[in-house]
Amino acid sequence: MEVVAIGTELLLGQVVNTNAAWLGEELAAAGMDANYQSVVGDNHDRMVLAMRTALARNDAVIVCGGLGPTQDDITREAIATVMNVALKRDKEVLERIRNRFRSASREMPRSNERQADVPEGASVIGQTIGTAPGLICPIGHKVLYAVPGVPAELKEMVSRAVIADLKARAASRGEQAAIVSRTLRTWGLSESALGEKVAGRVHELDRAGGNPTIAFLASGVEGIKIRVTAKGPTHKAATEIVEAEEEELRAVLGEVVFGIDDETMEHAAGKLLLENGLTLAVAESVTGGLVSSRLVNVPGASRWFRGGLVAYDSEVKYSLLGLAEGPVVTQSAALAMAAGVRDLLHSDIGLGITGVAGPQGQEGQAPGTVHIGLVGIPAKGSPGGSLGLERQGEVLTLRLPGDRQQVRQLAAISMVDLLRRRLLAIAAGNGG
Amino acid sequence: MEVVAIGTELLLGQVVNTNAAWLGEELAAAGMDANYQSVVGDNHDRMVLAMRTALARNDAVIVCGGLGPTQDDITREAIATVMNVALKRDKEVLERIRNRFRSASREMPRSNERQADVPEGASVIGQTIGTAPGLICPIGHKVLYAVPGVPAELKEMVSRAVIADLKARAASRGEQAAIVSRTLRTWGLSESALGEKVAGRVHELDRAGGNPTIAFLASGVEGIKIRVTAKGPTHKAATEIVEAEEEELRAVLGEVVFGIDDETMEHAAGKLLLENGLTLAVAESVTGGLVSSRLVNVPGASRWFRGGLVAYDSEVKYSLLGLAEGPVVTQSAALAMAAGVRDLLHSDIGLGITGVAGPQGQEGQAPGTVHIGLVGIPAKGSPGGSLGLERQGEVLTLRLPGDRQQVRQLAAISMVDLLRRRLLAIAAGNGG
Repeated sequence: MEVVAIGTELLLGQVVNTNAAWLGEELAAAGMDANYQSVVGDNHDRMVLAMRTALARNDAVIVCGGLGPTQDDITREAIATVMNVALKRDKEVLERIRNRFRSASREMPRSNERQADVPEGASVIGQTIGTAPGLICPIGHKVLYAVPGVPAELKEMVSRAVIADLKARAASRGEQAAIVSRTLRTWGLSESALGEKVAGRVHELDRAGGNPTIAFLASGVEGIKIRVTAKGPTHKAATEIVEAEEEELRAVLGEVVFGIDDETMEHAAGKLLLENGLTLAVAESVTGGLVSSRLVNVPGASRWFRGGLVAYDSEVKYSLLGLAEGPVVTQSAALAMAAGVRDLLHSDIGLGITGVAGPQGQEGQAPGTVHIGLVGIPAKGSPGGSLGLERQGEVLTLRLPGDRQQVRQLAAISMVDLLRRRLLAIAAGNGG
Repeated sequence: MEVVAIGTELLLGQVVNTNAAWLGEELAAAGMDANYQSVVGDNHDRMVLAMRTALARNDAVIVCGGLGPTQDDITREAIATVMNVALKRDKEVLERIRNRFRSASREMPRSNERQADVPEGASVIGQTIGTAPGLICPIGHKVLYAVPGVPAELKEMVSRAVIADLKARAASRGEQAAIVSRTLRTWGLSESALGEKVAGRVHELDRAGGNPTIAFLASGVEGIKIRVTAKGPTHKAATEIVEAEEEELRAVLGEVVFGIDDETMEHAAGKLLLENGLTLAVAESVTGGLVSSRLVNVPGASRWFRGGLVAYDSEVKYSLLGLAEGPVVTQSAALAMAAGVRDLLHSDIGLGITGVAGPQGQEGQAPGTVHIGLVGIPAKGSPGGSLGLERQGEVLTLRLPGDRQQVRQLAAISMVDLLRRRLLAIAAGNGG
């Protein structure tokens, strides 16, 4: 398997090839061996050479990019050359493109017609997000897929059609070992600290033959992921191995694990709020709305999220949240913001966050300093419901690394993690 | 020129190939044409094939990674196979590695001795940060460089030795050019509509010899980028060509261009607010804080951004923003939100946004429906200052494509774009 990414912008380093990394992860999770990646610019002859090279050394090739409507989008033409066939305009595809423009009440520019050109002998992967369809091109006993380079379109099309087609081809060749992966998502420990905690388990697995395997993925600001991958004769058998391993790891790691696979920190917190019948309001300064915007990405957030106040100007903190005039990057300010927004928006729980994103310090505090206030978690012995909520609060102070944007993102996740841990404590009957 | 990155972790997507992007930028800045990139795992035969393929289609190849001390670091061996020579342990290199360990008061593990192995006929790029030296390997009239995959070591070695060697080779062949790129960022037109607008210019440039070149990059939700790239005998000459072309394109595209290179939509709007001495407050429903969190990413945002209210619960819209009880996904609700938050946070301008992110419809409106309200832009003939602001407002209604997250992101940028266009209109003296 080889991934061929098309685009001069990739060669010039103006765009980082994250598509290839995403495809590598997906293919590995689906049990496909990816042996090569390559990148070539928007040049017909070099594209043809790159595709031919990829086909010579692999059974399957995924080409990404160059399917747009403009003149430099020539992946369709290059594939036709590689297949040694002509391009034919597909009426059905053309109609779908026309409909997309129609439903947006816009006229379709002539140049978009080219997106309906299909090499003879290729079949079409219908477009659902953008205007470019994908292609499945059989070449001898090998296959070449073409998908758009826009990440959202690529991901949707690969997940829906390409992986399934690859699996069907593998099954028809009698290669049917199933590979199942699950990712445990963690927050609060460094990669080396996590590594030490699970070192014994990794060693045991190695000695037992390496099934399942455990790998660490540092995914920047979203915490560290631990991926468990198992092989088995069937999907069910491989899943059972993964699930047993998840249980082992959770027993070692405890509440450091906040979710699996695509579950985010806010999914975890939202679920706990719902279970406890509690509502939330958020006052943000340093994070500027980032926490709220993450919370509303949880489906059904309206059942527990009342809203938020972005109090960027100090004046807004004083007048709407009732802070005493004076310094605003303090523990007491974070607590007052939490209490203020809880009153303002009539929620059970209030969260407040203030800090210094940098690059300069503020009020004598270093960049990366963040105070998080939490008010309204039910006290010990009064779990659940909104009755018996005590107006006690707590403050967490952090010193976060990185630039302005990274400090903000780490601060936002840390805030939701604090809430999650306190809600877990209620559930365990030792809240407060 | 081809960059060959070595490492199974790149194929599996556990590490994103940022080295290739960095090298692409550096090579372009130095006037070198980078035609291909490739990635191959830690496998001797496949590495040899990847290097031979790269040498067949390029005059120069940079191999990154696989120079470490562990067993899976076999780039040295693969290069020796490609060159058809033996490896020889270099005493001087070995001594430098020993000294590194000595100066850190550590004993050198035996495995590090391998890092002193040099293919016969290759010369060494001395290591200054890590323990791995780089290699310059002449192969016929072509050349292959090997540098470590650790980004800091790679950057130091490429900047110090590889680029200089490439330039010396180019100079000896009488080739000396600089390449300069600039990206114009646009919003509001589809890729094909943009393509049609500049088709004449692209055609003209092609006929005139293709310098500068124009390319389109669809960067998902952040609008479409138009990249202008020019070659010249010097950096200054190439920059002048790019700047002249930027002027040509801006004349055709007008206010569709909101910035260049790294400038975001909110940078453009923030700059105009500052120039006009106006402050802003934002009330968000469907975008849930996304607009605010983008605005605060602009350095100095505190000079014009008062804050925002995330009114996710309808109750919050009624009680704090003064909306009439009833439907909240309407044009009048968007306008009332804009006026309400302007009053609440005492800003000059108020923006309000309400809509349906999906996947379900709401209040009988389809997913993707978004209403944006704007209140407080100075009327015609009263440019600048906060005096004479009229309380008139306007509403923009959009039907946005995509899933929940994409609708939110497109809505957020559309809102800031509306503000930007109205502020441009004040500057042009026909505001309102």
